Amino acid sequence: MKKIAVITSGGDAPGMNACIRAIVNTAWQHDLEVIGFRHGFRGIVEDLNVPLHPDDMRLVSQRGGTFLKSSRFPEFREVDVAKKAAQVLDQHDISALVVIGGDGSFRGAHHLNQYWGGQVIGVPGTIDNDLAGTDVTIGFATAVDTAMDAIDKVRETAEAMARVFIIEVMGRHAGFIGLHAAIAAAAEAMILPELEPQPKLAELADGILQARAAFPDSSYVVILSENLWPGGVHELSKNLSKATGVTCHPCPLGHIQRGGRPNAQDRILAMQLGAAAVDAILSGKTAMMIGLEQEHVVHVPLHLTFERDKPLDARLVQLQLGLQGVNITSKTSK
Amino acid sequence: MKKIAVITSGGDAPGMNACIRAIVNTAWQHDLEVIGFRHGFRGIVEDLNVPLHPDDMRLVSQRGGTFLKSSRFPEFREVDVAKKAAQVLDQHDISALVVIGGDGSFRGAHHLNQYWGGQVIGVPGTIDNDLAGTDVTIGFATAVDTAMDAIDKVRETAEAMARVFIIEVMGRHAGFIGLHAAIAAAAEAMILPELEPQPKLAELADGILQARAAFPDSSYVVILSENLWPGGVHELSKNLSKATGVTCHPCPLGHIQRGGRPNAQDRILAMQLGAAAVDAILSGKTAMMIGLEQEHVVHVPLHLTFERDKPLDARLVQLQLGLQGVNITSKTSK
Amino acid sequence: MKKIAVITSGGDAPGMNACIRAIVNTAWQHDLEVIGFRHGFRGIVEDLNVPLHPDDMRLVSQRGGTFLKSSRFPEFREVDVAKKAAQVLDQHDISALVVIGGDGSFRGAHHLNQYWGGQVIGVPGTIDNDLAGTDVTIGFATAVDTAMDAIDKVRETAEAMARVFIIEVMGRHAGFIGLHAAIAAAAEAMILPELEPQPKLAELADGILQARAAFPDSSYVVILSENLWPGGVHELSKNLSKATGVTCHPCPLGHIQRGGRPNAQDRILAMQLGAAAVDAILSGKTAMMIGLEQEHVVHVPLHLTFERDKPLDARLVQLQLGLQGVNITSKTSK
Amino acid sequence: MKKIAVITSGGDAPGMNACIRAIVNTAWQHDLEVIGFRHGFRGIVEDLNVPLHPDDMRLVSQRGGTFLKSSRFPEFREVDVAKKAAQVLDQHDISALVVIGGDGSFRGAHHLNQYWGGQVIGVPGTIDNDLAGTDVTIGFATAVDTAMDAIDKVRETAEAMARVFIIEVMGRHAGFIGLHAAIAAAAEAMILPELEPQPKLAELADGILQARAAFPDSSYVVILSENLWPGGVHELSKNLSKATGVTCHPCPLGHIQRGGRPNAQDRILAMQLGAAAVDAILSGKTAMMIGLEQEHVVHVPLHLTFERDKPLDARLVQLQLGLQGVNITSKTSK
Repeated sequence: MKKIAVITSGGDAPGMNACIRAIVNTAWQHDLEVIGFRHGFRGIVEDLNVPLHPDDMRLVSQRGGTFLKSSRFPEFREVDVAKKAAQVLDQHDISALVVIGGDGSFRGAHHLNQYWGGQVIGVPGTIDNDLAGTDVTIGFATAVDTAMDAIDKVRETAEAMARVFIIEVMGRHAGFIGLHAAIAAAAEAMILPELEPQPKLAELADGILQARAAFPDSSYVVILSENLWPGGVHELSKNLSKATGVTCHPCPLGHIQRGGRPNAQDRILAMQLGAAAVDAILSGKTAMMIGLEQEHVVHVPLHLTFERDKPLDARLVQLQLGLQGVNITSKTSK
Repeated sequence: MKKIAVITSGGDAPGMNACIRAIVNTAWQHDLEVIGFRHGFRGIVEDLNVPLHPDDMRLVSQRGGTFLKSSRFPEFREVDVAKKAAQVLDQHDISALVVIGGDGSFRGAHHLNQYWGGQVIGVPGTIDNDLAGTDVTIGFATAVDTAMDAIDKVRETAEAMARVFIIEVMGRHAGFIGLHAAIAAAAEAMILPELEPQPKLAELADGILQARAAFPDSSYVVILSENLWPGGVHELSKNLSKATGVTCHPCPLGHIQRGGRPNAQDRILAMQLGAAAVDAILSGKTAMMIGLEQEHVVHVPLHLTFERDKPLDARLVQLQLGLQGVNITSKTSK
Repeated sequence: MKKIAVITSGGDAPGMNACIRAIVNTAWQHDLEVIGFRHGFRGIVEDLNVPLHPDDMRLVSQRGGTFLKSSRFPEFREVDVAKKAAQVLDQHDISALVVIGGDGSFRGAHHLNQYWGGQVIGVPGTIDNDLAGTDVTIGFATAVDTAMDAIDKVRETAEAMARVFIIEVMGRHAGFIGLHAAIAAAAEAMILPELEPQPKLAELADGILQARAAFPDSSYVVILSENLWPGGVHELSKNLSKATGVTCHPCPLGHIQRGGRPNAQDRILAMQLGAAAVDAILSGKTAMMIGLEQEHVVHVPLHLTFERDKPLDARLVQLQLGLQGVNITSKTSK
Repeated sequence: MKKIAVITSGGDAPGMNACIRAIVNTAWQHDLEVIGFRHGFRGIVEDLNVPLHPDDMRLVSQRGGTFLKSSRFPEFREVDVAKKAAQVLDQHDISALVVIGGDGSFRGAHHLNQYWGGQVIGVPGTIDNDLAGTDVTIGFATAVDTAMDAIDKVRETAEAMARVFIIEVMGRHAGFIGLHAAIAAAAEAMILPELEPQPKLAELADGILQARAAFPDSSYVVILSENLWPGGVHELSKNLSKATGVTCHPCPLGHIQRGGRPNAQDRILAMQLGAAAVDAILSGKTAMMIGLEQEHVVHVPLHLTFERDKPLDARLVQLQLGLQGVNITSKTSK
């Protein structure tokens, strides 16, 4: 019986468990045996293996996080370490490895591919959605829902107290969560790494002042992507408070965005991609990521997923810029 | 100043409010005035008009239901009634009407189009997703999340008590909610109108018995679409209990599936389509539905949305059939 | 080392896992060993034992259901079966048994107490809250939240469509869930087993007609306790539709009310009572239930918990009757 | 017709809307007219009055925040400002004022009472629960649920990545939210203002190291009350990282704790206290807060609510200290 392995790697994302279930169950249908290594690439090197059987997959897809656990493991860039992983995989007679993770994990998978003869298949699992070659990544939809729910909550107290909030969301170096959360939560402004030109402090302050003049009784919510403003949300809030004379409250959403039960979209996506990963193995593919583009499963060479940038959907950016502009100016300019 | 009107019609769906916001704000950007009629087509006929301004749209997109209210209004099929609506619209100098609703509402819109000279634009808003010409409808994603959350809850007590549950979900005459909820909740079986051939009682009973033999300690969940099994979920549960000797508990999810705050996917979809509806009006289109296909906004002649059937995604059906088969048989057949 | 056992019995309730955690961790602090039997009393008789250690309790309190599983086991009323259980407990050298469950389970515990020499301690775990001797039972608060959330969802679609809904909630033969859900969801009417006199059909119909006259645009929600109206919620809806000429939609909430992650109140209650159960064992108590009255832990002879009825809080009944009366009549009578 | 007024004041809290509904509906039953002033005491001074009628209260109790809006208004401490408020109240012929808020608001109410002849009644509404004379305050239960849900989410990613998190919760200068959230989320450690002696850095570091040795694969969660550690959660995380050599991630939950739909407990509490406030007015009381002690409504002189400290429940502190100790040490010391 042929044997395949699976790991979850890098930042965990809601839906990873559903993906593992689909891999294990689909493999089982085709008489493939599956083992997992805990804690990602580190777990391969340290041989933290665990057999995976459909019987144990019945109730995992409902849960957040990853029961296989994950880790960041920069040491894997070293040739010796990758070779050690190859050796462990060979000892277990593994013929294919599925890596569920983001761009760092796919660099690792690509690296391993040079020192190991088995097939390597990537499945995009990251809340940040910053992988080229797929419209969506596992965990992104849930993270957006979580951010939106949190912003909705902040909106309620902001509205009750007529306050300005600067809310920092995750996204590493991409604005996907920020953009989608801003639209969904009907934010008054957004600051994302991809915006050209970046909004200046003076403009942001001006938007606040304009809205305060028009709606003195109301809330005002700015969405800020992490890793973007020097000093982060606290510094921006301080600067905006000073520039406007209105207290701007900082609110970093933090790691709640990585947790939570996956929503339906993420579970279904995860199972589609997991099943497709096994199909790709059966048809002999290697060094490929399984993606979803325009609702179709696609195979993308691994290196293309992290060598290219993935742009935001320009139409969604325009949509939000238009809607938020009206939010601010409707009363004053009419 | 040009004036347009908007109604929500038929069964309400989460996201309708976000759609109205996008219509009002986008119209305002282009100097169009917007009025709403409450309670759908009936509200036009009875002239239940209400002016809509961006200032009132700031906090509506977060909320479920439709603040414009909706209704079913079969009388609208009569020529006189449609003519009366046309007259009211003309009295208000309306040049275009946006109808947010499902197939019944689009039949109404198509009907009105024959007796009224203004532009008629449809936006797909129904939890059932049973409209041809668009991949998704406003409210569908939230309804699937709501159904999934409910099934997850039932799963917990089912698992604690080692019980079989037959869970009935909405969908009118289509299996979209059933299919997506079944995948997301990792159901052991599903009965959808589109399955060919339909699963027979004997097969369903056999699945239950097989799983009980393999996992006597565990839960078993069957998803049933409404309007499908004669006598509904109660009759099916009775029949299955008799056929298997195992008590099968009926659980109709009911109208909770229509409520709830819209999730991010529905809010974003609703705003995209709402903004696109105004764009379509500006470019002179009429008798068209605004849809989303493969992530792109499309315009579809209204009559094509209800004259054709919309099939389930066959790949998702296969995915679930495969995964659920493994859930049931993994232990016994190995 | 002294050894104690724990079971969860009867209908599962959110918070049971947190209670088990508190029992195991508290026992461990006092050098008591703990084993669980799966599936309640049946599991004792069939010796389905499983050792329980704090290491395995770290992440259980967040989850709904009961990982020890439960069951209904009417056979336990037979003397031979109870004696068999006593024998198994003795074989394991168990000196005390904690039973987490409702009144049926406490009858079982009381029965066992007559044929077994060890200590028997009950902890009230049932969503129905129908146990005398304690203000609240584990699972009740979460069930009320779940019912309320569901009613809130139904309210949204009811409001959008100006509909009347009759919503059936759980409670076996007690109106606790019904009363608390009715207040929390601002229902227009409620039908609970404890109301004296029971509202008649004519009165219920009258309330609906009065409200429809005053608020023709609005929703109307009646809460009905299960096992109360002949024919249940479907029959009542049919009768009310006929009596009023207004379609009244039935909506049984069903088993979702037993599932779901426990809320904070239930987790904290569960841990208080679980820890107190171990304290009671250490101080030599037996045939006692651990309850919470006016925020204090109390010990109540087991038989008093099921021999007496537990009344609803009359002040809460009056509160809701007053508030709902105003909901219906404010406009008409002013 | 006698006229009463109501304000929400200070930090908003989930449940305030339900409380307003109960006040308005109960007043209406007794032929009292009700007006609200927006934005708390400031709204009285600026005469931002709005009439309140039961018809508008039908759907408010489901919503978070306060539709009357609130504000902090330190100027109210000045005699002239309080006199101005008295004057406005007299102009409106108000005979009684209900203030829903926390200790700052009750100081304001007490102050007003010296310059105004009407009755002044307080209702405890603050998420912090830091008011003497009542076991619970409106908003506290929801805030604890919100904090717990957030910590549960962080726990999932912490568990997947085997990480240590320091999570900062609200509470102003009291540990109620911290304590209840720590129990409910099964935290490994907590730092609350009331703990005597305060845990030292060395002890905290030691707990982390001990647990990492025993459970190297697992998460570790410390709950920190705000306004307690110099430099806050970021400084504490830095110090602990340094002391242990393990990265400790800071996670301030922030203002999401003030938002959200009120849970059932808060809605029911809010309606009880709101109705009791009107009863107190009718029976001639003044300068009193309506509280709930041991499930009974009580009247407490306003000044006693803010002049005394409210201690944590010592039994709950002991419960959590015991349970968390076992979480950390069970494996190592056995």
